[in-house]
Parts: sequence; structure tokens; C-alpha cells
Amino acid sequence: VTTSFAAPVSSTISSEPNPLPRRQKGLALIVIGTGRIGSELLNQIAVHPRALGGELRVCAIANSRRWIWKRNGLNLRPWTLQIRRSSVRTDLDELIQRTRDLRDVTVAVVDCTASSAVVDAYTRFVEAGAHIVTPNKKANVLPWARYRLLLQSFAQCDRRFLFGPTVGGGLPVLSTLSTLLSTGDTVRAIEGVFSGTLSYLFNRYDGSRPFSALVREAHQLGFTEPDPRVDLSGSDVASKLLVLARQMGIPSELNDICVEDLSTPCLDADIARRFKSVSRDGAVLRYVGRIRDRTISARLESLPRSHPFANTRHADNIVAFHTRRYSETPLVIQGPGAGPEVTAAGVVSELLRLLQS
Amino acid sequence: VTTSFAAPVSSTISSEPNPLPRRQKGLALIVIGTGRIGSELLNQIAVHPRALGGELRVCAIANSRRWIWKRNGLNLRPWTLQIRRSSVRTDLDELIQRTRDLRDVTVAVVDCTASSAVVDAYTRFVEAGAHIVTPNKKANVLPWARYRLLLQSFAQCDRRFLFGPTVGGGLPVLSTLSTLLSTGDTVRAIEGVFSGTLSYLFNRYDGSRPFSALVREAHQLGFTEPDPRVDLSGSDVASKLLVLARQMGIPSELNDICVEDLSTPCLDADIARRFKSVSRDGAVLRYVGRIRDRTISARLESLPRSHPFANTRHADNIVAFHTRRYSETPLVIQGPGAGPEVTAAGVVSELLRLLQS
Repeated sequence: VTTSFAAPVSSTISSEPNPLPRRQKGLALIVIGTGRIGSELLNQIAVHPRALGGELRVCAIANSRRWIWKRNGLNLRPWTLQIRRSSVRTDLDELIQRTRDLRDVTVAVVDCTASSAVVDAYTRFVEAGAHIVTPNKKANVLPWARYRLLLQSFAQCDRRFLFGPTVGGGLPVLSTLSTLLSTGDTVRAIEGVFSGTLSYLFNRYDGSRPFSALVREAHQLGFTEPDPRVDLSGSDVASKLLVLARQMGIPSELNDICVEDLSTPCLDADIARRFKSVSRDGAVLRYVGRIRDRTISARLESLPRSHPFANTRHADNIVAFHTRRYSETPLVIQGPGAGPEVTAAGVVSELLRLLQS
Repeated sequence: VTTSFAAPVSSTISSEPNPLPRRQKGLALIVIGTGRIGSELLNQIAVHPRALGGELRVCAIANSRRWIWKRNGLNLRPWTLQIRRSSVRTDLDELIQRTRDLRDVTVAVVDCTASSAVVDAYTRFVEAGAHIVTPNKKANVLPWARYRLLLQSFAQCDRRFLFGPTVGGGLPVLSTLSTLLSTGDTVRAIEGVFSGTLSYLFNRYDGSRPFSALVREAHQLGFTEPDPRVDLSGSDVASKLLVLARQMGIPSELNDICVEDLSTPCLDADIARRFKSVSRDGAVLRYVGRIRDRTISARLESLPRSHPFANTRHADNIVAFHTRRYSETPLVIQGPGAGPEVTAAGVVSELLRLLQS
């Protein structure tokens, strides 16, 4: 078993001609969370040219129970086996100490959990020298005062907080917003369909079956959250809107967002009635999130068939940026915005950004 | 007048406590071309926070006749006045020498011309230490052997060639392709509407007026190239497809691309006939560019109304990436893909990338 909590192996520096400490090239990763996204991420890194070339090194893998560690980078091919065989219980304090020990390398903690405990530890990881990369929205939706403090700790330690995959998975949504803002454009509104699940449900619903039957089917196909109410309540959409709004400099809270909750008892009758009504006008139902004039909302809307959002397919996300420069028609990004493969690719994209800068 | 071709002013280093040469922070720019895009770029840089903070400095501005220069950065507010007053004739050899003189700074040459002479000088600029940033496709469509040599000179000198705005202006088209490839996805096909002019023409054409009347109108509104045949011939679309294909590693030539030329004498009758025919089936005409199985083509196609490309508006570009990970539905980028404002913003975005790396 290669897992070990011994002090950094001295052989790793024995071949160095110069005994002075020097900054090693590349990026050392501490991956926390081995669920669907974390596992897929490790599989993608295992075959990535930058990892095979030694520039991306996974030094630690931790899940809620166990963890494994190797200062110079784990051999990822049998990582599932290694972590299954590990007898070392995960301890965030221990992980933070290891981050500190890696001070001669650039370190990124990749948070692939949905755990508040890990988010609570971000500041200590950052103070220990790590950048944070995550597809987890939990930190972004903290109360504004706490979120500001978190950002301040990143700034003070000159470390980066990269969360591109929190909105749209692998789609270039947050990177596009960032480019618009950094090149001096003014974003007037962002609107779109931000939930793959709700997109799928309203793309398919045709009135022939109860809406709840469609929800059950989507759940069985693995398209919804383990608890579909997280999707239906609009809280997932609200979180994504808050991520975007705060990037735009709007100091909002989750509670400020006006969200239509679809996880109601009389859902089937309600959706059937509304579908019938809009169909008469040749329109469609879409669950639309919107940020405009510092107001953030998410609700079921009736849209004409010619509207771009009416033409989403399968579980597509779609996001339209209305800006000073993109005023006649908006800048639009569309495509699958969830799923482990594209979300993990979004994380890899952030790691490559970190590697380049 | 602040223009001057004197040797680097000694006062610029007199306040340095340390006489040893050291690398200055930020990015020094040599902007060539003061047409619509170059002018807009200079106006955007003039008010950009990074320029006001001194990190982005325009050290030279040149057009086909005159140029101005200031080692520590020109004051951009009256740049049009300065260059009009300059009596110094533009000389590329002189500009290359100035690039060499700036060796203690990171230098980017921004080519906003459509000039082959400037492209021919890229290698010498690179050897003198400059990165090249351009919205000009001329270098990308050089014969493959010459293009490879050019890329080799960038690699040998460890300098970057950034041409994001050549496809889609400010839209994240080439950056998305680059992210897909660098994160290990496999791009199976790219297809889309790549010409704002042809998009506008076919979005508006309804058979009520001759197509050529619409072309004249678009020309008067400034939506077409000065010579509309550049748009109608499909050569602009072919160039963009070649930029994308070469980024995908396909060593094609412009001549390999199967292009439908719409700049024919009997255009009006031809378009009218085809429009009538597809309208009977409830379809629309769109000029579609496509890269699939290493085959590159651009032609007028009949698409059903439900097709995403049928829902472009105004002069929108639309690009769909079909990949191994985006297979059920593609990743799609849509929006205005031309015009000085968004194209110049695309250049600024590349400059910020350079500044960060």
C-alpha cells in the first residue's frame, strides 16, 4: 500500500544538485470528494498529457471516510483500489497541515464534495497556501458578509478561488461573464434556463402524462438530484443566479431571490392547466432564471415558440448575456450544463488556467 | 508634440535605485493599423483600468503612413491628433528595432491591419521578442508549410500567437475550442453560420425583393465588407473554417475547402427559386460552414424551422461544437460575431490573457 502519513520522503530531494529550497514546477492537487464528479475528475487527470508529463500531480485524495497521500504524486491508475485499502481516516486538519508542507509547490485544493465542513475549512487551506477550485456552489452562496471575508482571505494570501463549473458545468458561462466585465462591457441582464433537470422536464412535457410521472422517469434515468425537490423547488437555480449576480458585483443573498417553487402538492394539475393555456397561444413553458436591474428571479414562464429558450433540447442549459456591446441580439451559450463528465472537464479547465498563470 | 524617434529617453531609468536591468511589469503594446478595429481598440485601452494603472502601455501606434512612439507609453487621450501631426513615415524595420529595444518588458504587437506586409514581418517581430495578437486571419490561412514555419518561430522564441478574434469577433469560439481540446475532449464536428453578413441577408430575405437589393441595403448600412463579394463568395467563411480546422490539427489549405460562391451573375433568380422551393417544406435557407471528418465545406443549405441555425437573428453568428462529451446535444455559441466594438473587445481579452500569464 502506497498510503503513508510519514514526513516528506527524503529521497525525493536526494537527487537535487542544489540543497537550497526552490519552487517546483507544476501544480500539486489535493482532491476532496470521490463521488461522481470527483471520480470522473481523477479519471480525466489520470490520462491528461499534463499529468503524464508530471505538471499536474494528485498528492492527496480524500473522501468522507479515508484518504491517501504521496508527496510527489500518486499513481492514479489504481486510485480506487488504493483508497479502498487505506486505513487512514480523513481529517481536514491533517490535510491542511499537508498543504502547508507543500509550500515549495503551487497547491490547489479541489473540492468535489457538497460538504459545508470543507467550505468552512477554505480559509485555513488558503492561509496554508492553497488555491481552491470547485464545482460546489456552497461557498458562493454563503451570507454576503461571510462570503466577503472569504474573498478577502484569498486576496490577502494572493491565492485564487476558481469556481467556473458551478454554473453550466463545462459550458463557458462564468468565463464569458468574466471576459465581458474585464474588457469593459456593461452587463445589463443575464437570463436563461439554468437547470438541466427542469429543462429536460419542460422540453418533454406535452400534457399526455402527469408531470410527476415525468419527474419519476427523469429520477430513474439519473437526470435529477438524488432528491428531485432540490431541482423542483428552484433552489439550485437560485444558487446559480446568486453566483452570477455576485460576480457582477451585486451583494445579494439567497433570500433576496424571488423563486417559484414547483415542489408543491398540486403540481400535476397546476402544470397541466398552465400548459393547456399557453399551448392555445402557440407558446411553451420554460423555467427561466433572470438577473436584471439588480433583481434576481426564477419562475415558470410562457415563451413564444420563436424565443431562443423555446428551442432548447434534451437537458440543455441556455444563458443569454444582454450587454452594452451585445445589445441588438445577446451573446448566448447553450448546451448540456450538468453531468460528471462535462463538469469534471470544467474543473480540469480551471486547473489548466492555474497552471498557466 | 510627444512623438519622437530618439533613442530611449535616459530619464526613464534615472529614478531607478538599482542600475541592473530588470524586467518591468505589465505589457508594452505596438499597435499597427488605425482603421475601424484599431481605432476602437485604442479607445477601449484608453479607458481600461489596467491601462490607467500602467499595466497596459501603448508604446507605438502605426498606420500605413505615419507612426508615433513613446517608450514609457503614449498618452492615448489625444492619440488621433498625435498621429495626424506626426511626420514620421511608418517603417516596419524601425518598429522591429523598437521591439528589440523594449527587451526588458513583455511586448505585444497588435496587428489590426489586413496587410500581408505586416504578416510577412511577424517572424522578425517574434525574433525581436514580441508576442503577436491579431483579429487578422491572413497569417492563419498562409500555405500550410509557411504557417508551420511561423508557428515554429513562435515556439522557438517562447512567444505566443493569439488570434481569438479571427473567428466570431468577441464571441468565445476559439477559446471554447481550445478548452475542449486541452481538457481531453474529442471534437467530431464544428458547424455554424460564420458570416454576419450572410446571416443578416438570409435572416431578412423573404422573397419580396431581389436578393441583390438586400445586399445593396446591407452594404449601405455598413454590414458588408467594402467589397460585398468577399462575403458573397464565401471566402471569408472559408478562412474562418481554416482557422478552426488548423487549431484542430487538420493541415488543410484554403483550396481544400469546398465553397459555394454566391457572387454569381444570376444570383437573384437562383436564390428566389431555392427560397420558394424550401419554403414549401417549411424550411429556411442558411449559409452553413462545416468541419467534419477532416472535410471542410461552406454552402447554402435548407434547414427545418426547428433547427437551431434557423433561429439566428439580425447578423448573429452561431457555432455548434459536436464532441465526444457534447454528443446528445452540441455546445453552442451564438451572437453578433463582427463589428469593431466586439472585435476590439476580443483583442483586449487576448491582451489580458497575456498579462495574466
